[in-house]
Amino acid sequence: MNGLPAFRSETHSPADLADRLFKTRKVTLDLAAPLSDADATIQPFPDASPAKWHLAHTTWFFETFVLRDHLPGYSAFDDRFAFLFNSYYEAEGERHARPKRGMLSRPSLDEVRAWRAHVDEALDRAFPALSPEAVELIELGINHEQQHQELFLTDILATLAENPLEPAYFELPTPACFATEPLTFHPGRTGIVEIGARDDGFAFDCERPRHRVFLHPHAIGSRRVTNGEWAEFIADGGYTNSALWLSEGWDWVQRESISAPLYWRAEGTEFTLAGRREIDHAAPVAHVSYYEADAFARWAGARLPTEAEWESFAESADPSIGNQLDQATAVLPKPGGGIFGDTWEWTGSAYLAYPGFAPAEGAVGEYNGKFMSGQHVLKGASCATPRGHSRASYRNFFPPAARWQFTGLRLARDS
Amino acid sequence: MNGLPAFRSETHSPADLADRLFKTRKVTLDLAAPLSDADATIQPFPDASPAKWHLAHTTWFFETFVLRDHLPGYSAFDDRFAFLFNSYYEAEGERHARPKRGMLSRPSLDEVRAWRAHVDEALDRAFPALSPEAVELIELGINHEQQHQELFLTDILATLAENPLEPAYFELPTPACFATEPLTFHPGRTGIVEIGARDDGFAFDCERPRHRVFLHPHAIGSRRVTNGEWAEFIADGGYTNSALWLSEGWDWVQRESISAPLYWRAEGTEFTLAGRREIDHAAPVAHVSYYEADAFARWAGARLPTEAEWESFAESADPSIGNQLDQATAVLPKPGGGIFGDTWEWTGSAYLAYPGFAPAEGAVGEYNGKFMSGQHVLKGASCATPRGHSRASYRNFFPPAARWQFTGLRLARDS
Amino acid sequence: MNGLPAFRSETHSPADLADRLFKTRKVTLDLAAPLSDADATIQPFPDASPAKWHLAHTTWFFETFVLRDHLPGYSAFDDRFAFLFNSYYEAEGERHARPKRGMLSRPSLDEVRAWRAHVDEALDRAFPALSPEAVELIELGINHEQQHQELFLTDILATLAENPLEPAYFELPTPACFATEPLTFHPGRTGIVEIGARDDGFAFDCERPRHRVFLHPHAIGSRRVTNGEWAEFIADGGYTNSALWLSEGWDWVQRESISAPLYWRAEGTEFTLAGRREIDHAAPVAHVSYYEADAFARWAGARLPTEAEWESFAESADPSIGNQLDQATAVLPKPGGGIFGDTWEWTGSAYLAYPGFAPAEGAVGEYNGKFMSGQHVLKGASCATPRGHSRASYRNFFPPAARWQFTGLRLARDS
Amino acid sequence: MNGLPAFRSETHSPADLADRLFKTRKVTLDLAAPLSDADATIQPFPDASPAKWHLAHTTWFFETFVLRDHLPGYSAFDDRFAFLFNSYYEAEGERHARPKRGMLSRPSLDEVRAWRAHVDEALDRAFPALSPEAVELIELGINHEQQHQELFLTDILATLAENPLEPAYFELPTPACFATEPLTFHPGRTGIVEIGARDDGFAFDCERPRHRVFLHPHAIGSRRVTNGEWAEFIADGGYTNSALWLSEGWDWVQRESISAPLYWRAEGTEFTLAGRREIDHAAPVAHVSYYEADAFARWAGARLPTEAEWESFAESADPSIGNQLDQATAVLPKPGGGIFGDTWEWTGSAYLAYPGFAPAEGAVGEYNGKFMSGQHVLKGASCATPRGHSRASYRNFFPPAARWQFTGLRLARDS
Repeated sequence: MNGLPAFRSETHSPADLADRLFKTRKVTLDLAAPLSDADATIQPFPDASPAKWHLAHTTWFFETFVLRDHLPGYSAFDDRFAFLFNSYYEAEGERHARPKRGMLSRPSLDEVRAWRAHVDEALDRAFPALSPEAVELIELGINHEQQHQELFLTDILATLAENPLEPAYFELPTPACFATEPLTFHPGRTGIVEIGARDDGFAFDCERPRHRVFLHPHAIGSRRVTNGEWAEFIADGGYTNSALWLSEGWDWVQRESISAPLYWRAEGTEFTLAGRREIDHAAPVAHVSYYEADAFARWAGARLPTEAEWESFAESADPSIGNQLDQATAVLPKPGGGIFGDTWEWTGSAYLAYPGFAPAEGAVGEYNGKFMSGQHVLKGASCATPRGHSRASYRNFFPPAARWQFTGLRLARDS
Repeated sequence: MNGLPAFRSETHSPADLADRLFKTRKVTLDLAAPLSDADATIQPFPDASPAKWHLAHTTWFFETFVLRDHLPGYSAFDDRFAFLFNSYYEAEGERHARPKRGMLSRPSLDEVRAWRAHVDEALDRAFPALSPEAVELIELGINHEQQHQELFLTDILATLAENPLEPAYFELPTPACFATEPLTFHPGRTGIVEIGARDDGFAFDCERPRHRVFLHPHAIGSRRVTNGEWAEFIADGGYTNSALWLSEGWDWVQRESISAPLYWRAEGTEFTLAGRREIDHAAPVAHVSYYEADAFARWAGARLPTEAEWESFAESADPSIGNQLDQATAVLPKPGGGIFGDTWEWTGSAYLAYPGFAPAEGAVGEYNGKFMSGQHVLKGASCATPRGHSRASYRNFFPPAARWQFTGLRLARDS
Repeated sequence: MNGLPAFRSETHSPADLADRLFKTRKVTLDLAAPLSDADATIQPFPDASPAKWHLAHTTWFFETFVLRDHLPGYSAFDDRFAFLFNSYYEAEGERHARPKRGMLSRPSLDEVRAWRAHVDEALDRAFPALSPEAVELIELGINHEQQHQELFLTDILATLAENPLEPAYFELPTPACFATEPLTFHPGRTGIVEIGARDDGFAFDCERPRHRVFLHPHAIGSRRVTNGEWAEFIADGGYTNSALWLSEGWDWVQRESISAPLYWRAEGTEFTLAGRREIDHAAPVAHVSYYEADAFARWAGARLPTEAEWESFAESADPSIGNQLDQATAVLPKPGGGIFGDTWEWTGSAYLAYPGFAPAEGAVGEYNGKFMSGQHVLKGASCATPRGHSRASYRNFFPPAARWQFTGLRLARDS
Repeated sequence: MNGLPAFRSETHSPADLADRLFKTRKVTLDLAAPLSDADATIQPFPDASPAKWHLAHTTWFFETFVLRDHLPGYSAFDDRFAFLFNSYYEAEGERHARPKRGMLSRPSLDEVRAWRAHVDEALDRAFPALSPEAVELIELGINHEQQHQELFLTDILATLAENPLEPAYFELPTPACFATEPLTFHPGRTGIVEIGARDDGFAFDCERPRHRVFLHPHAIGSRRVTNGEWAEFIADGGYTNSALWLSEGWDWVQRESISAPLYWRAEGTEFTLAGRREIDHAAPVAHVSYYEADAFARWAGARLPTEAEWESFAESADPSIGNQLDQATAVLPKPGGGIFGDTWEWTGSAYLAYPGFAPAEGAVGEYNGKFMSGQHVLKGASCATPRGHSRASYRNFFPPAARWQFTGLRLARDS
């Protein structure tokens, strides 16, 4: 989920849109509430960003694409911020090097908050006279900010995980204990099906056009793979048996000394946004890479579903149900969830263009298409995905070794 | 084309098979004829192998999987060679590290030739009493050796290209000059088509099962992109315009200072197996990466074909026609060729499993499936592919930055 | 100046010692006053440390070696801090990896200040009953803390220099303009001289024993090389003429694209602790590596002095005079200084053991000797050296490519 | 021993000089006799060179500095070779990248031999009319070629050591068994002594000028450290006790997983130029780095001698006695040797300029001085040093982690 744009606007009233905008903006602010300026400044590794950067970059998005371009007479809060907080929009000029984002103690968290307030006020003033194009950009900006809310949480988890003091982002009570739901396989649809986003409603460019694909006989798991099943995989030597792994995956396991999901720690515990906790064996496993998901599936005598199989399976499910983000708190995958929520699910499909794909126009139209190499598609939503953000056609994507997101898997098999 | 096996045997008479076997073995020997022991020892970079290694590894294949396993009483020529010349068959035990293959001045080229003769004699003796399983392995070994003939040529080209003296592998006369064929776009088939290898005849495991896919309206170029067209791309700033490139591709271009196909040199020349020559503008461009092919297509207002589009397009073509390898000489892409030969063609498809894919059994069944991440499919054949080796369902694959193979492209577009 | 210990105690009254201790501790606190929690958390590169770390590590030193070992019943403020803030004392157990020091937003700057207060109070309580050994350790701790005050300043300069906003640590008025002092060469002493620290008074172990060396006829410059002279070196192509450079230095210049002192910026400016300022051509050049100093000397037809030449030259100078650190502020090299202060001076001598050198005993006796390879000696003091810390026998040392310290040079020549 | 030149000529008759020249040239040829073209082409790692390169580079030296510059009308054997076989003489123009030396199968070993013959004939013709300057250059070229004879042997050892077949360069009979000589310590001279080369006779520039140094009371070991003593160091945990190591050395041991001298192999054997053999416990240890030598000395309660102590100790010894290179064969350190021969000895001294040092003029005067950073001095001679090449004032030098030379140590201590 490195890139974004390209979309079509929802048909909502301006008042609805304003409401959604400012509610979304508030959630981002709330996410930062428990953090110190120092917490918000650290970049745990080059592909992640400081919390403060997420607050600033989402603000830069509205200031640049909405206020600068559509509010006559608007002057930027600080001209120097465009250089610091552009992410990768080449058309928007030079920008600060990504691996150096953790070097910025200034502007402070409070200064970034002041910038947010300044931009929010200007957006509020601008609302009555917004052009349809600006309305589309606000819709896009809301979705963009939702993506960064998820990254905010996964990046702050990565940041706190680096600290030997194991600080909690939010405290949570000890969870109740659940039994693991039995796993069954449901037959999927066979023959020609349609996938991708329909023309109406908001979607990113890469989800379109909706198009036909041919599905072969298959079955798909009733639930995600659990931590308990993953522990069996480990106990059975899963990480030391080369026969289970893709060649690249095996190189990665050996080079990085991988032997468990990213945040698993000693004695049956894992590090979470609520600090170190006992691993819940009934909950879906998270923080595994594509390589691990693929090896697990082979070990289980199964495979990962393709994107089309998954989307066909999920089409009738309600994407607003499930363990997703409603407000700022310590999110965690939990037992018993449905199709959307808890963890994203790796598919066996590479992230490539749909037939007839055309990127959106202009700088905001950069760059979903830019990332169409070396990445795999993930479907669904996670506990860190803002409720309302996802849908069956949603295409999340990450490189096969990435695992700092809430990434898990569901099994499939030929039939 | 790092891996191989898994197949079904051709139904040929033993005499035919023996004839094909020893003809194939002889071509490999002939390929080494112009090389010194030192030429054959150098490894130009870790993903390529010394010429001597190819001679030895193909011999190891027959000694191990046919003679050791199917000729009672056979004793290995030298027990230590199994360690040195296994490539990546984990089931066959420890092996010499790939990046160290250029450290082996011993065994000498002549010793490897003696090993080949020893194994060929034993194969000849074994022929009358071969089991059906061994016959299948010989068929597989022939195809395996053909793959290494192509790698032999691309690796020796890479080796000689490292030498500032610019030595020729074989001398060739100056070629005649051809006009560039005009480019037209043919409408492709739409709707459900079948791709993949049928059950009869030899094919690698990854080509099966044959299965249905849905094709969307599209058109496909009548010929490959030429050197002349590539020169226009360069002249138009193709390598310096980030908007044309995938994000990973743009990083690669900048990190590696890429500005032309791999072997292009100053003043309109390129390095070839026949030494340095003037670039033939009517010939298909070769030695470009997936990133370059994709950027070129975007610049041309087109895209790469998908694997299924290409295979459907090529299905009625005769794969035994075209500029392919018949004997040891300096091969070059040439103007005016058809669908097979001259250069492999990058497709927009990732190299992933077909629905219902199952790897072949046992050590020879390693490892087409092992490489199903991070690679793109190439279709067709090149001037270095032994005639008779390829077919429409053939799935060659390489990582997106690879360009030491004879790799080019053909354009496609939605319609 | 990576390591420390091994010493002999000054003969002062306990009251004097306490006074010096708490004054020193206060200066460190004052140095942190202008910093935010975030400023104090950033580690600009692996060899530098966050400001907060310096505050914590110097506190750990007293808590561990004085309070834990010499104050019966003392219990640590937080047991987990020993792991986080030990630097490299192997005898003191495992410690947090150096390149990860910038990952610690907790403990916060205020928590570290609270720890300091706790330890200072305990030290105050402990004073009346201190053993002679503990007195020695307090003397050592003062010197240790002074070293970290200098590193605090050079590391915060490196941190702020990473920020495109170019923030100032302290504001300073625009300086007056001075003429450059003329350069003359003074004949040095010839024959046997003594160098190294005498037995009385505090000194680090590596400064001892005082011993005889033989000096050859030479002359030494009356002042340091200035920014103006360095600008002439650049204008004369100093950074592009391989003949001026050591082989390793030339590799470094090309690999790192070095073309000026570390903090020089466009249009005659440099980044300083007071923000970006015009370069003062009469001030001594700072932030140059050994490689650069050596190349400059060769360009100037001179050489660097040896450690013994420098020490003999400086022996009668008063080390308490000059531009050194008296209180928390933005320090800068200035024109017109004497032998001590402004910048450390690279010598041509490797940092190796003196004849008869013996490391101090125990964990505090780690590790001056540990660093006796790959480093060059620097003599004198800089504008960031706490006044009173240095002396003619002082041996500062850094690897030849280091330049984030205030490092300059003085020329010498054979005569 | 990366660089060379700068010298004063021996006063010998032209006939003597010619005799020495052609005898030296013949030894180099003889060293290549047992090698195949492929053996001579491999570069085992970037700091070592192929055998063929040594044959070519020493020939380039005479062709360039003697024949081109001093034989009117001489034309180069092949103009392209100057680019390929210049080592690092910047004044002689561009050159082939050092890490790419193993990419050159052409020219072949036989072509290089033909070049040698061509140059030797021209040198023979030139002899009667040589200018004094050319005579000096021939003297220099002889010494240069002797240095490369030693490197030829150490580099071919490194090459063959890479081959799992463990080929021998020359076969040698199993050695007789010797008892270890007891170790005693001899008091060294104290006070002012002179070291460095006198004005007469050949020496490299870095050995001059002869100058006075002050020696402190010390004693020096009667013999080198043996393999048997090294085995005790290992058995006592020498490689796993951080307290014994310099900080850089400890990092190196851990990063490179060092646990024995370079060529020690399983079960009490080591790889040598005569293949794998049992380790001779009475012979001096070889192929240890400065870091290892320093750690061993600390473990033994001693230290390494300084360069001046060693040179003073060796001054009355005859450098032409001992286990040194007389002809092409498999050389090995042996028990019972004297001061020169068997292994070079690491000293505690950095390789830096002597007081009054001035590099030789012109391109041949490049580059002893160029290497005066990051290296330590080694004294004596090894079993691979051509007899007659070394002397007490000789300054060999290598970086502290290098160990592919025949490098050992002798202990010293303060007294």
